Amino acid sequence: MKAKTKRHADPELAQARRNQVLCAAAECFKRKGYHGAGMAEISKMAGMSAGHIYNYFASKDAIIESIIQRDMEETLSLFQEFEENPGDLVTILIDGLDDAVVRHTDMDNKALSLEMLSEGARNEKIATLLQQSDTESRERMRNLLVGERGPLKASSEREINARIEIMFAMIGGLLLRKTLNPNLDKEGLLIALRPAIKTLLLPFE
Amino acid sequence: MKAKTKRHADPELAQARRNQVLCAAAECFKRKGYHGAGMAEISKMAGMSAGHIYNYFASKDAIIESIIQRDMEETLSLFQEFEENPGDLVTILIDGLDDAVVRHTDMDNKALSLEMLSEGARNEKIATLLQQSDTESRERMRNLLVGERGPLKASSEREINARIEIMFAMIGGLLLRKTLNPNLDKEGLLIALRPAIKTLLLPFE
Repeated sequence: MKAKTKRHADPELAQARRNQVLCAAAECFKRKGYHGAGMAEISKMAGMSAGHIYNYFASKDAIIESIIQRDMEETLSLFQEFEENPGDLVTILIDGLDDAVVRHTDMDNKALSLEMLSEGARNEKIATLLQQSDTESRERMRNLLVGERGPLKASSEREINARIEIMFAMIGGLLLRKTLNPNLDKEGLLIALRPAIKTLLLPFE
Repeated sequence: MKAKTKRHADPELAQARRNQVLCAAAECFKRKGYHGAGMAEISKMAGMSAGHIYNYFASKDAIIESIIQRDMEETLSLFQEFEENPGDLVTILIDGLDDAVVRHTDMDNKALSLEMLSEGARNEKIATLLQQSDTESRERMRNLLVGERGPLKASSEREINARIEIMFAMIGGLLLRKTLNPNLDKEGLLIALRPAIKTLLLPFE
Protein backbone atom coordinates (compact mmCIF):
# COMPACT_ATOMS: atom_id res chain seq x y z
CA MET A 1 0.00 0.00 0.00
CA LYS A 2 2.74 2.48 -0.94
CA ALA A 3 1.55 5.69 -2.62
CA LYS A 4 3.19 6.06 -6.01
CA THR A 5 6.06 8.52 -5.66
CA LYS A 6 8.76 9.20 -8.22
CA ARG A 7 12.42 8.26 -7.68
CA HIS A 8 15.04 10.91 -7.11
CA ALA A 9 18.84 11.01 -7.09
CA ASP A 10 19.17 12.22 -3.48
CA PRO A 11 16.66 10.19 -1.43
CA GLU A 12 17.06 12.28 1.74
CA LEU A 13 16.52 15.59 0.01
CA ALA A 14 13.58 14.11 -1.87
CA GLN A 15 12.07 12.92 1.43
CA ALA A 16 12.48 16.39 2.96
CA ARG A 17 10.80 18.00 -0.06
CA ARG A 18 7.97 15.50 0.05
CA ASN A 19 7.40 16.29 3.73
CA GLN A 20 7.41 19.99 2.92
CA VAL A 21 4.64 19.42 0.36
CA LEU A 22 2.64 17.16 2.70
CA CYS A 23 2.71 19.72 5.52
CA ALA A 24 1.69 22.56 3.22
CA ALA A 25 -1.08 20.48 1.65
CA ALA A 26 -2.40 19.37 5.06
CA GLU A 27 -2.65 23.02 6.07
CA CYS A 28 -4.46 23.95 2.83
CA PHE A 29 -6.91 21.04 3.11
CA LYS A 30 -7.72 22.05 6.67
CA ARG A 31 -8.33 25.66 5.73
CA LYS A 32 -10.25 25.20 2.49
CA GLY A 33 -11.25 21.56 2.35
CA TYR A 34 -9.87 19.04 -0.10
CA HIS A 35 -12.01 20.31 -2.96
CA GLY A 36 -11.39 23.97 -2.17
CA ALA A 37 -7.59 23.73 -2.06
CA GLY A 38 -5.88 23.80 -5.46
CA MET A 39 -2.34 22.92 -6.47
CA ALA A 40 -1.62 26.65 -6.90
CA GLU A 41 -2.40 27.23 -3.22
CA ILE A 42 -0.43 24.21 -2.05
CA SER A 43 2.48 25.40 -4.12
CA LYS A 44 2.31 28.87 -2.56
CA MET A 45 2.06 27.47 0.98
CA ALA A 46 4.98 25.08 0.38
CA GLY A 47 7.13 27.80 -1.19
CA MET A 48 7.76 25.52 -4.19
CA SER A 49 6.65 25.87 -7.80
CA ALA A 50 3.76 23.65 -8.92
CA GLY A 51 6.13 22.08 -11.46
CA HIS A 52 8.55 21.23 -8.66
CA ILE A 53 5.73 19.64 -6.63
CA TYR A 54 4.77 17.50 -9.62
CA ASN A 55 8.26 15.99 -9.41
CA TYR A 56 7.22 14.43 -6.13
CA PHE A 57 3.47 13.93 -6.42
CA ALA A 58 1.58 13.23 -9.61
CA SER A 59 -1.65 14.82 -8.33
CA LYS A 60 -3.58 16.20 -5.38
CA ASP A 61 -4.92 12.65 -4.84
CA ALA A 62 -1.34 11.36 -4.54
CA ILE A 63 -0.73 13.94 -1.81
CA ILE A 64 -3.74 12.97 0.29
CA GLU A 65 -2.84 9.30 -0.23
CA SER A 66 0.58 9.97 1.27
CA ILE A 67 -1.00 11.77 4.23
CA ILE A 68 -3.27 8.78 4.88
CA GLN A 69 -0.31 6.42 4.58
CA ARG A 70 1.69 8.46 7.09
CA ASP A 71 -1.23 8.36 9.56
CA MET A 72 -1.52 4.62 9.09
CA GLU A 73 2.17 4.09 9.81
CA GLU A 74 1.76 6.06 13.03
CA THR A 75 -1.19 3.90 14.11
CA LEU A 76 0.57 0.67 13.25
CA SER A 77 3.65 1.65 15.23
CA LEU A 78 1.33 2.15 18.22
CA PHE A 79 0.03 -1.40 17.82
CA GLN A 80 3.61 -2.61 17.63
CA GLU A 81 4.32 -0.97 20.98
CA PHE A 82 1.31 -2.74 22.50
CA GLU A 83 2.42 -6.04 21.02
CA GLU A 84 5.98 -5.73 22.27
CA ASN A 85 5.07 -4.57 25.78
CA PRO A 86 5.25 -7.69 28.00
CA GLY A 87 2.85 -6.36 30.70
CA ASP A 88 -0.83 -7.13 31.30
CA LEU A 89 -2.65 -6.41 28.05
CA VAL A 90 -5.77 -4.78 29.53
CA THR A 91 -3.59 -2.45 31.63
CA ILE A 92 -1.45 -1.58 28.59
CA LEU A 93 -4.47 -0.73 26.47
CA ILE A 94 -6.17 1.28 29.25
CA ASP A 95 -2.91 3.18 29.86
CA GLY A 96 -2.76 3.94 26.14
CA LEU A 97 -6.01 5.92 26.38
CA ASP A 98 -4.33 9.08 27.72
CA ASP A 99 -2.37 9.30 24.50
CA ALA A 100 -5.42 8.43 22.36
CA VAL A 101 -7.38 11.32 23.88
CA VAL A 102 -4.57 13.79 23.17
CA ARG A 103 -4.16 12.64 19.57
CA HIS A 104 -7.88 12.60 18.79
CA THR A 105 -8.72 15.96 20.31
CA ASP A 106 -5.76 17.83 18.84
CA MET A 107 -7.34 20.56 16.72
CA ASP A 108 -4.88 20.25 13.85
CA ASN A 109 -5.11 16.50 13.42
CA LYS A 110 -8.83 16.56 13.95
CA ALA A 111 -9.70 18.96 11.16
CA LEU A 112 -7.62 17.04 8.65
CA SER A 113 -8.98 13.64 9.71
CA LEU A 114 -12.56 14.85 9.36
CA GLU A 115 -11.71 16.28 5.96
CA MET A 116 -10.27 12.93 4.82
CA LEU A 117 -13.25 10.98 6.15
CA SER A 118 -15.63 13.42 4.55
CA GLU A 119 -13.75 13.16 1.24
CA GLY A 120 -13.80 9.38 1.61
CA ALA A 121 -17.59 9.48 1.32
CA ARG A 122 -17.16 10.84 -2.23
CA ASN A 123 -13.74 9.72 -3.47
CA GLU A 124 -13.48 5.96 -3.93
CA LYS A 125 -9.68 5.88 -4.03
CA ILE A 126 -9.42 7.70 -0.71
CA ALA A 127 -12.18 5.53 0.78
CA THR A 128 -10.23 2.42 -0.24
CA LEU A 129 -7.03 3.65 1.41
CA LEU A 130 -8.83 4.60 4.63
CA GLN A 131 -10.54 1.21 4.63
CA GLN A 132 -7.30 -0.73 4.09
CA SER A 133 -5.73 1.13 6.98
CA ASP A 134 -8.77 0.47 9.20
CA THR A 135 -8.85 -3.23 8.25
CA GLU A 136 -5.22 -3.56 9.31
CA SER A 137 -5.92 -1.79 12.63
CA ARG A 138 -8.92 -4.03 13.36
CA GLU A 139 -6.86 -7.11 12.54
CA ARG A 140 -4.04 -6.04 14.88
CA MET A 141 -6.54 -5.30 17.65
CA ARG A 142 -8.25 -8.63 17.10
CA ASN A 143 -4.93 -10.48 17.39
CA LEU A 144 -4.22 -8.71 20.66
CA LEU A 145 -7.64 -9.53 22.13
CA VAL A 146 -7.83 -13.22 21.20
CA GLY A 147 -4.07 -13.93 21.16
CA GLU A 148 -2.07 -15.90 23.70
CA ARG A 149 -2.29 -13.27 26.44
CA GLY A 150 -5.59 -11.82 25.19
CA PRO A 151 -8.52 -11.33 27.61
CA LEU A 152 -11.20 -12.46 25.14
CA LYS A 153 -10.07 -15.85 23.85
CA ALA A 154 -13.50 -17.32 24.64
CA SER A 155 -15.58 -14.72 22.78
CA SER A 156 -17.28 -15.41 19.43
CA GLU A 157 -15.97 -13.82 16.24
CA ARG A 158 -19.09 -11.68 15.95
CA GLU A 159 -18.74 -10.42 19.51
CA ILE A 160 -15.04 -9.60 19.04
CA ASN A 161 -15.84 -7.65 15.88
CA ALA A 162 -18.59 -5.71 17.67
CA ARG A 163 -16.25 -4.89 20.58
CA ILE A 164 -13.56 -3.60 18.23
CA GLU A 165 -16.05 -1.55 16.21
CA ILE A 166 -17.45 0.12 19.33
CA MET A 167 -13.96 0.80 20.74
CA PHE A 168 -12.93 2.36 17.43
CA ALA A 169 -16.21 4.32 17.24
CA MET A 170 -15.57 5.68 20.73
CA ILE A 171 -11.96 6.71 20.08
CA GLY A 172 -12.67 7.96 16.55
CA GLY A 173 -15.74 9.79 17.83
CA LEU A 174 -13.49 11.93 20.03
CA LEU A 175 -12.52 13.67 16.78
CA LEU A 176 -16.06 15.05 16.64
CA ARG A 177 -16.32 16.10 20.28
CA LYS A 178 -13.86 18.98 20.13
CA THR A 179 -15.68 20.44 17.11
CA LEU A 180 -19.02 20.12 18.88
CA ASN A 181 -17.90 21.21 22.35
CA PRO A 182 -15.08 23.77 22.38
CA ASN A 183 -15.08 23.70 26.21
CA LEU A 184 -14.33 19.98 26.22
CA ASP A 185 -12.65 18.87 29.46
CA LYS A 186 -10.10 16.61 27.76
CA GLU A 187 -8.52 15.16 30.88
CA GLY A 188 -11.93 14.63 32.47
CA LEU A 189 -12.90 12.39 29.54
CA LEU A 190 -10.73 9.61 30.96
CA ILE A 191 -13.04 9.30 34.01
CA ALA A 192 -15.64 7.73 31.70
CA LEU A 193 -13.48 6.50 28.82
CA ARG A 194 -11.47 4.08 30.99
CA PRO A 195 -14.47 2.17 32.45
CA ALA A 196 -16.24 2.09 29.06
CA ILE A 197 -13.19 0.65 27.29
CA LYS A 198 -12.58 -1.75 30.17
CA THR A 199 -16.11 -3.13 29.70
CA LEU A 200 -15.19 -3.81 26.08
CA LEU A 201 -11.86 -5.48 26.96
CA LEU A 202 -13.19 -7.94 29.55
CA PRO A 203 -15.73 -10.78 29.21
CA PHE A 204 -19.33 -9.51 29.59
CA GLU A 205 -21.02 -10.59 32.80
CA MET B 1 -31.92 29.53 16.73
CA LYS B 2 -34.17 29.93 13.69
CA ALA B 3 -32.35 30.30 10.34
CA LYS B 4 -33.38 33.53 8.68
CA THR B 5 -35.95 32.72 6.01
CA LYS B 6 -38.12 35.17 4.13
CA ARG B 7 -41.91 35.40 4.57
CA HIS B 8 -44.25 34.22 1.85
CA ALA B 9 -47.95 34.62 1.11
CA ASP B 10 -48.70 30.87 1.11
CA PRO B 11 -46.83 29.38 4.07
CA GLU B 12 -47.49 25.75 3.06
CA LEU B 13 -46.27 26.17 -0.48
CA ALA B 14 -43.26 28.09 0.80
CA GLN B 15 -42.49 25.25 3.20
CA ALA B 16 -42.72 22.68 0.40
CA ARG B 17 -40.39 24.76 -1.77
CA ARG B 18 -37.92 25.18 1.07
CA ASN B 19 -37.87 21.42 1.61
CA GLN B 20 -37.30 20.91 -2.11
CA VAL B 21 -34.24 23.16 -1.93
CA LEU B 22 -32.94 21.53 1.27
CA CYS B 23 -33.16 18.03 -0.23
CA ALA B 24 -31.45 19.08 -3.44
CA ALA B 25 -28.73 20.94 -1.54
CA ALA B 26 -28.13 17.99 0.81
CA GLU B 27 -27.61 15.77 -2.22
CA CYS B 28 -25.19 18.26 -3.84
CA PHE B 29 -23.19 18.72 -0.61
CA LYS B 30 -22.86 14.95 -0.27
CA ARG B 31 -21.67 14.53 -3.85
CA LYS B 32 -19.32 17.48 -4.13
CA GLY B 33 -18.73 18.73 -0.61
CA TYR B 34 -19.98 22.05 0.71
CA HIS B 35 -17.26 24.03 -1.03
CA GLY B 36 -17.57 22.12 -4.28
CA ALA B 37 -21.34 22.53 -4.66
CA GLY B 38 -22.43 25.88 -6.11
CA MET B 39 -25.84 27.53 -6.20
CA ALA B 40 -26.03 26.72 -9.93
CA GLU B 41 -25.80 23.01 -9.18
CA ILE B 42 -28.28 23.17 -6.31
CA SER B 43 -30.66 25.06 -8.59
CA LYS B 44 -30.34 22.39 -11.30
CA MET B 45 -30.83 19.53 -8.80
CA ALA B 46 -33.88 21.26 -7.26
CA GLY B 47 -35.40 22.05 -10.65
CA MET B 48 -35.78 25.69 -9.59
CA SER B 49 -34.06 28.81 -10.89
CA ALA B 50 -31.32 30.27 -8.69
CA GLY B 51 -33.42 33.46 -8.46
CA HIS B 52 -36.34 31.43 -7.16
CA ILE B 53 -34.10 29.75 -4.55
CA TYR B 54 -32.93 33.15 -3.34
CA ASN B 55 -36.57 33.87 -2.46
CA TYR B 56 -36.27 31.22 0.23
CA PHE B 57 -32.60 31.23 1.23
CA ALA B 58 -30.32 34.24 1.17
CA SER B 59 -27.17 32.12 0.64
CA LYS B 60 -25.60 28.66 0.63
CA ASP B 61 -24.80 29.21 4.33
CA ALA B 62 -28.51 29.81 5.03
CA ILE B 63 -29.25 26.44 3.40
CA ILE B 64 -26.78 24.45 5.48
CA GLU B 65 -28.00 26.30 8.58
CA SER B 66 -31.51 25.07 7.86
CA ILE B 67 -30.25 21.52 7.41
CA ILE B 68 -28.49 21.66 10.79
CA GLN B 69 -31.62 23.10 12.39
CA ARG B 70 -33.75 20.29 10.95
CA ASP B 71 -31.30 17.69 12.34
CA MET B 72 -31.38 19.38 15.72
CA GLU B 73 -35.19 19.31 15.83
CA GLU B 74 -35.08 15.57 15.10
CA THR B 75 -32.62 14.97 17.95
CA LEU B 76 -34.58 17.07 20.40
CA SER B 77 -37.81 15.25 19.60
CA LEU B 78 -35.97 12.04 20.49
CA PHE B 79 -35.05 13.48 23.89
CA GLN B 80 -38.67 14.49 24.36
CA GLU B 81 -39.73 10.88 23.78
CA PHE B 82 -37.24 9.72 26.42
CA GLU B 83 -38.47 12.37 28.85
CA GLU B 84 -42.14 11.51 28.36
CA ASN B 85 -41.69 7.73 28.56
CA PRO B 86 -42.59 6.76 32.16
CA GLY B 87 -40.55 3.50 32.18
CA ASP B 88 -37.15 2.77 33.68
CA LEU B 89 -34.74 5.34 32.27
CA VAL B 90 -31.74 3.04 31.77
CA THR B 91 -33.93 0.53 29.91
CA ILE B 92 -35.42 3.31 27.75
CA LEU B 93 -32.00 4.64 26.78
CA ILE B 94 -30.58 1.16 26.09
CA ASP B 95 -33.63 0.32 23.97
CA GLY B 96 -33.09 3.56 22.03
CA LEU B 97 -29.70 2.27 20.81
CA ASP B 98 -31.21 0.13 18.02
CA ASP B 99 -32.56 3.29 16.44
CA ALA B 100 -29.33 5.23 17.08
CA VAL B 101 -27.31 2.60 15.21
CA VAL B 102 -29.64 2.76 12.20
CA ARG B 103 -29.59 6.56 12.07
CA HIS B 104 -25.81 6.86 12.48
CA THR B 105 -24.85 4.18 9.96
CA ASP B 106 -27.29 5.27 7.25
CA MET B 107 -25.06 6.12 4.28
CA ASP B 108 -27.05 9.19 3.23
CA ASN B 109 -27.20 10.85 6.62
CA LYS B 110 -23.63 9.92 7.38
CA ALA B 111 -22.03 11.58 4.38
CA LEU B 112 -23.88 14.80 5.02
CA SER B 113 -23.13 14.83 8.76
CA LEU B 114 -19.41 14.32 8.13
CA GLU B 115 -19.51 17.10 5.55
CA MET B 116 -21.12 19.47 8.06
CA LEU B 117 -18.66 18.56 10.81
CA SER B 118 -15.78 18.94 8.42
CA GLU B 119 -17.09 22.33 7.28
CA GLY B 120 -17.55 23.26 10.94
CA ALA B 121 -13.78 23.04 11.37
CA ARG B 122 -13.45 25.96 8.92
CA ASN B 123 -16.71 27.89 8.98
CA GLU B 124 -17.34 29.64 12.28
CA LYS B 125 -21.06 30.20 11.69
CA ILE B 126 -21.64 26.51 11.02
CA ALA B 127 -19.45 25.54 13.98
CA THR B 128 -21.55 27.78 16.23
CA LEU B 129 -24.82 26.20 15.07
CA LEU B 130 -23.48 22.67 15.53
CA GLN B 131 -22.20 23.63 18.98
CA GLN B 132 -25.51 25.17 20.06
CA SER B 133 -27.30 22.03 19.00
CA ASP B 134 -24.78 19.83 20.84
CA THR B 135 -24.97 21.97 24.00
CA GLU B 136 -28.74 21.54 24.03
CA SER B 137 -28.41 17.75 23.57
CA ARG B 138 -25.86 17.47 26.38
CA GLU B 139 -28.10 19.53 28.66
CA ARG B 140 -31.13 17.32 27.95
CA MET B 141 -29.04 14.19 28.55
CA ARG B 142 -27.67 15.64 31.77
CA ASN B 143 -31.18 16.40 33.04
CA LEU B 144 -32.23 12.82 32.32
CA LEU B 145 -29.22 11.33 34.12
CA VAL B 146 -29.32 13.45 37.29
CA GLY B 147 -33.06 14.18 37.31
CA GLU B 148 -35.68 12.73 39.64
CA ARG B 149 -35.59 9.23 38.10
CA GLY B 150 -32.00 9.51 36.88
CA PRO B 151 -29.48 6.74 37.71
CA LEU B 152 -26.58 9.12 38.42
CA LYS B 153 -27.86 11.62 40.97
CA ALA B 154 -24.82 10.98 43.17
CA SER B 155 -22.17 11.58 40.49
CA SER B 156 -20.02 14.73 40.34
CA GLU B 157 -20.58 17.31 37.61
CA ARG B 158 -17.22 16.49 36.05
CA GLU B 159 -18.01 12.78 35.96
CA ILE B 160 -21.46 13.36 34.43
CA ASN B 161 -19.93 15.54 31.73
CA ALA B 162 -17.31 12.89 30.96
CA ARG B 163 -19.98 10.17 30.75
CA ILE B 164 -22.07 12.24 28.34
CA GLU B 165 -19.05 13.14 26.19
CA ILE B 166 -18.01 9.48 25.87
CA MET B 167 -21.57 8.35 25.10
CA PHE B 168 -21.85 11.03 22.42
CA ALA B 169 -18.38 10.14 21.07
CA MET B 170 -19.43 6.49 20.82
CA ILE B 171 -22.73 7.18 19.06
CA GLY B 172 -21.30 9.95 16.87
CA GLY B 173 -18.29 7.77 16.09
CA LEU B 174 -20.61 5.25 14.43
CA LEU B 175 -20.81 7.81 11.59
CA LEU B 176 -17.17 7.04 10.85
CA ARG B 177 -17.39 3.25 11.09
CA LYS B 178 -19.43 2.70 7.94
CA THR B 179 -16.97 4.79 5.91
CA LEU B 180 -14.04 2.86 7.35
CA ASN B 181 -15.58 -0.61 7.26
CA PRO B 182 -18.04 -1.17 4.39
CA ASN B 183 -18.70 -4.72 5.70
CA LEU B 184 -19.87 -3.38 9.05
CA ASP B 185 -22.20 -5.81 10.85
CA LYS B 186 -24.68 -3.15 11.97
CA GLU B 187 -26.91 -5.38 14.07
CA GLY B 188 -23.92 -7.09 15.64
CA LEU B 189 -22.73 -3.70 16.95
CA LEU B 190 -25.40 -3.81 19.63
CA ILE B 191 -23.69 -6.83 21.28
CA ALA B 192 -20.95 -4.45 22.44
CA LEU B 193 -22.74 -1.08 22.30
CA ARG B 194 -25.35 -2.03 24.92
CA PRO B 195 -22.87 -3.10 27.67
CA ALA B 196 -20.60 -0.11 26.95
CA ILE B 197 -23.45 2.38 27.20
CA LYS B 198 -24.80 0.59 30.27
CA THR B 199 -21.43 1.08 31.99
CA LEU B 200 -21.81 4.80 31.31
CA LEU B 201 -25.40 4.95 32.59
CA LEU B 202 -24.83 3.23 35.95
CA PRO B 203 -22.62 4.22 38.90
CA PHE B 204 -19.01 3.00 38.45
CA GLU B 205 -18.02 0.19 40.77
